[in-house]
Amino acid sequence: MTKIYLDHIAATPLGDGVFEAMKPYFGEFFGNAQSLHTAGQLALQAVEEAREKVAALIGASSEEVFFTASGSEANNFALKGMARANASRGRRIVLSAVEHQSVLQSAKSLEKLGFTTATVPVDRFGGIDPDDVRKALTPDTALVSVMTANSEVGTIEPVSEISRICRESGVPFHTDAAAAAGNIPLEVRALGVDALTLAADQFYGPKGAAALFVRKGVRLLPLIDGGIQENGRRGGTENVPAIVGMGKAAELAAAGIAARMESAATRRDRLVRGLLDRVEHAIFTGDPKNRLPHHASFCIEFIEGEAMLLHLDMKGIAASSGSACTSKALKASHVLLAMGVDHALAQGSLVFSLLDATTEADIDYVLDAFPPIVDRLRRMSPLYTEYLKENKR
Amino acid sequence: MTKIYLDHIAATPLGDGVFEAMKPYFGEFFGNAQSLHTAGQLALQAVEEAREKVAALIGASSEEVFFTASGSEANNFALKGMARANASRGRRIVLSAVEHQSVLQSAKSLEKLGFTTATVPVDRFGGIDPDDVRKALTPDTALVSVMTANSEVGTIEPVSEISRICRESGVPFHTDAAAAAGNIPLEVRALGVDALTLAADQFYGPKGAAALFVRKGVRLLPLIDGGIQENGRRGGTENVPAIVGMGKAAELAAAGIAARMESAATRRDRLVRGLLDRVEHAIFTGDPKNRLPHHASFCIEFIEGEAMLLHLDMKGIAASSGSACTSKALKASHVLLAMGVDHALAQGSLVFSLLDATTEADIDYVLDAFPPIVDRLRRMSPLYTEYLKENKR
Repeated sequence: MTKIYLDHIAATPLGDGVFEAMKPYFGEFFGNAQSLHTAGQLALQAVEEAREKVAALIGASSEEVFFTASGSEANNFALKGMARANASRGRRIVLSAVEHQSVLQSAKSLEKLGFTTATVPVDRFGGIDPDDVRKALTPDTALVSVMTANSEVGTIEPVSEISRICRESGVPFHTDAAAAAGNIPLEVRALGVDALTLAADQFYGPKGAAALFVRKGVRLLPLIDGGIQENGRRGGTENVPAIVGMGKAAELAAAGIAARMESAATRRDRLVRGLLDRVEHAIFTGDPKNRLPHHASFCIEFIEGEAMLLHLDMKGIAASSGSACTSKALKASHVLLAMGVDHALAQGSLVFSLLDATTEADIDYVLDAFPPIVDRLRRMSPLYTEYLKENKR
Repeated sequence: MTKIYLDHIAATPLGDGVFEAMKPYFGEFFGNAQSLHTAGQLALQAVEEAREKVAALIGASSEEVFFTASGSEANNFALKGMARANASRGRRIVLSAVEHQSVLQSAKSLEKLGFTTATVPVDRFGGIDPDDVRKALTPDTALVSVMTANSEVGTIEPVSEISRICRESGVPFHTDAAAAAGNIPLEVRALGVDALTLAADQFYGPKGAAALFVRKGVRLLPLIDGGIQENGRRGGTENVPAIVGMGKAAELAAAGIAARMESAATRRDRLVRGLLDRVEHAIFTGDPKNRLPHHASFCIEFIEGEAMLLHLDMKGIAASSGSACTSKALKASHVLLAMGVDHALAQGSLVFSLLDATTEADIDYVLDAFPPIVDRLRRMSPLYTEYLKENKR
């Protein structure tokens, strides 16, 4: 059966050589990286080499990279750790309206500790105006967190401008770059961020490995208290094979990123143009230009995302309807609603996110398979029947 | 070169078939368990099957098992999540003096939120008197946490008695069973605990997978806020291969645990008797009977743990000097100090923890290799020179 995986934003397969790099750490080199004996020291060395590779991907020093088990953990670590460490400044947190659930819910959890959250809006493309961040800053702001790129609509945010504004006000700034890192070039010095989240399974690394970059000198409290791992900032036995895999994936991602982006964008544009040509009442979402190169997102009017996903799946096509972390919640995406998309239309959210391995033939297969699915679902849609009546067709 | 790994408490190698069980989830079945398409559903199914196996190991229902990335995370989750959820009762936490750093430091972190910690002492074997827990309970106690077994001295604590006392007072009770689960039989209903931590890499499962059992109806706040994973209690993309590996390891652990314990205890006793016979001034630590069957711990007078580990390592023997999470901190073990061991003697801590695969020949090799190491280190020890002078030898 045909299998076309267009759900990069949910999880990528492992890149070339990633599994092979991890494998010895499930076998011969299974030691605990904190053990003093050779088995431990070999594990530790592997962790530190991976840390250097992850640091190199984002232009950081290796001692600024702290491994976590997921992007969500890194976001919780940043939000809770930095906000609480900076509570002497005040207890206000500034976020955008389109952040990942792990950022939004971390802020909600901080509200129970007396913090308040100010939300910066987005425009109809999901873009944030840096001036809105400037206006949201007050002397008692402890932390600003704005994502680098949105996984639901692909839009890339003006992180370096926002970072400059925060720096001028002396407010710590975190960016969730989970969807972006490894897929577009990111350089923490140029971005000027104080903390940045990245996740291996967004750039052909394994699940179970992610990291938080924390600029030297930035204060944050641990999320997971414990032993001396991660320089005392994150307790828990290091997941050596996953960390090694993340290092290898970072190395792969850093190589030839410009060429990969160009290739992805070309194939992505073929999909976007083809789909908009062939499907009536399909609306492209997110920023048309300033977006992740592998990311195509739409709202398909009159039908529901979940139904489309199931029908696409029957044709061997894996796609998503927004974030995997909330997709089953079957609520309209907070991202689309923040962009001003109306509730009914937001239900028809559909995201195709390409892999490096996605071919033009794959895309053409999707372009052939998708319109009949839309037709079938629309025939069953009361909303569409109503629309046709109103438009006398 | 000879390689004899006697550091079970730091990390175990993978059990038979564990890696093979994990492998497909690094390849064909790499989907995100929250995705609606087939790739996601296959991953989810694997996660849920693993959850059932882990639940079966401890006699829980699968919906009471929440996966985390480490025992430390599970301990943080339990301590912070339960204490904060029960703060209406009061802000007092009762712990034993010999808990793992992830428990102790979680409590310290809670102190910043207005909680106070009461510490229950241990006897010279590292054992806790349930009556001391009873005395420590006050109407404003939000949580009690006492470990099931201590990884540094092997002592098994009277968890079901402590649990009964807590239940009588209506105080939630958590036990860190990371060192115990999979190595001795544990049944959450018989133990009567509200929450229990277990870690895959302590029973031949992979790093990066652990779990917190939370009895149905017990309230706790998330540690990692985010999406809908783990029934909304723990955000972050599931580490599918590691979880699958934990499930397989749980299945292996559950099978024939009594026979494995007996075999481990026989070999362990050979090591203990042999070592005490051949090494002067070696003191056995922890409870002589009521202890983990694979665990042998000592204090070797006049010399330091770290030096012993390095010399043993040169002979191909991997051992530890207490918890891997603090071993490099080179501080005397808080566990030994709490047992009344004096500071100088505590520096000579040494733990041999056996694998299922450890043979009698391995043990005899250690028994031959170790005494000359002790002799050599003692010849360099000013403390020993002084001792000999005082004893006119």
